[in-house]
Amino acid sequence: MNKKAIGMFDSGIGGLTVYRAIKERLPREKIIYLGDTARLPYGSKSAETIVRFSEENARFLLGNNIKILVVACNSSSAYALTHLTDMLAVPIVGVIEPGAEAAARTAKKIVGVIGTSATIASRAYEDAIRAKKPDLRILSRDCPLFVPLVEEGWIEHPVTRLVGEEYLLPLQRQGIDTMVLGCTHYPVLKPMLTTVLGPEVQLIDSALTTAERVQRMLESLGWLRDGNETAASAPDEFYVTDFPERFRRVGEIFLGRKITDVRVVSF
Amino acid sequence: MNKKAIGMFDSGIGGLTVYRAIKERLPREKIIYLGDTARLPYGSKSAETIVRFSEENARFLLGNNIKILVVACNSSSAYALTHLTDMLAVPIVGVIEPGAEAAARTAKKIVGVIGTSATIASRAYEDAIRAKKPDLRILSRDCPLFVPLVEEGWIEHPVTRLVGEEYLLPLQRQGIDTMVLGCTHYPVLKPMLTTVLGPEVQLIDSALTTAERVQRMLESLGWLRDGNETAASAPDEFYVTDFPERFRRVGEIFLGRKITDVRVVSF
Repeated sequence: MNKKAIGMFDSGIGGLTVYRAIKERLPREKIIYLGDTARLPYGSKSAETIVRFSEENARFLLGNNIKILVVACNSSSAYALTHLTDMLAVPIVGVIEPGAEAAARTAKKIVGVIGTSATIASRAYEDAIRAKKPDLRILSRDCPLFVPLVEEGWIEHPVTRLVGEEYLLPLQRQGIDTMVLGCTHYPVLKPMLTTVLGPEVQLIDSALTTAERVQRMLESLGWLRDGNETAASAPDEFYVTDFPERFRRVGEIFLGRKITDVRVVSF
Repeated sequence: MNKKAIGMFDSGIGGLTVYRAIKERLPREKIIYLGDTARLPYGSKSAETIVRFSEENARFLLGNNIKILVVACNSSSAYALTHLTDMLAVPIVGVIEPGAEAAARTAKKIVGVIGTSATIASRAYEDAIRAKKPDLRILSRDCPLFVPLVEEGWIEHPVTRLVGEEYLLPLQRQGIDTMVLGCTHYPVLKPMLTTVLGPEVQLIDSALTTAERVQRMLESLGWLRDGNETAASAPDEFYVTDFPERFRRVGEIFLGRKITDVRVVSF
């Protein structure tokens, strides 16, 4: 079992922030990543559609000999996690619970949550944070333009700063002390977010806490690859449902390195 | 035959600008509109994927008793029109040819073309304009943030103006006299575009010229509904593949009125 891969999917490219965090923490593990680039984004779509797409992604990965499934997409984690858990015979880690856990640990009085329209509408972070620390005040806001701005590569662009101010100053003025980055695209915007929110606001990047959770789960199951195995002996695999060139190119923004071998699959 | 409907599809909501233009010109006609909202946007996807999605949309409409098919999506028109024309036994009108025709008629020396990344990469407008008026200089630019800005409702927002300046001032400085709006979302940005480009630059809205083309084609076939028929006797139908609420809400930006009855279909 321990030689099997970690399977993960996202609606597209953003999940590479989670990939990177898992890879840094568990360099020996083989990872199979699927980006559903033909149907992205998920964050503007309905619950039913997100569940249907997520199930198709999960079934593809399960067909590829994985030992654990990481749902790296916040919108999928918000809507499809219970469904996938009920349906699939493999341990599943989403990004909402780990993010909520970190937020509850860090936040003092008021926590902000930002994400896609679907994630914010689901109230999944609010429910998960409230379950852990009921006395926190939670302010949520969807930020639909952040994903297109990141995909355009306008990471340090004045327009992105202006959009950030429009979305976030109302939360900042109410005195949030912690901000949950509830979308896998947002960690690349950390410098802008710190400028807008101020350095005293703690940013919660669920990529890091999700990687922690994956490690803990594999450890407790005894499923971590052992010292005799290296990732080089079983290189990671990247699949997309469309446009591998674009994935390679934009992927560099998230990974800081080129992804050379990306294969296209179709459902 | 003349009682059958006009079928049209778009990747989502933007095609309503074409719907509106056809409706204003041909108020007696019944229109069946399909927005592929589960898989939008098309403009960031590959040619193969756009062709596949377009074919599925067209087949759905052909199953609904249509006399003519309007491909209201620029990305679909750019990549899938030849394929659809070869495959389907119904007259087909895309938005590229009518837009190129109007541009060639209007432009004096330098024409600009803006659209999604897919449409601009296809060079479909360039080829079509050049075929009609080979001595025109053509400057193209993809504007990937315009669609998300329109869908966010930031039509007259300072951020949209800034993004417009970044995308368009390089074209404006080179002295374009005509600008083709190569995406069905862009007509709602006309005031901003005029501010950025200056009032002397003619904006070509292919919705209007496409509606003209549809009328000419139906006239020449003798397929227009006659004076005894009213649209009220056969109301228009709207279908989406996801999220009818959102279509109703954002649709108002394009139509200036609410769309009450939107049905969901799934392929």
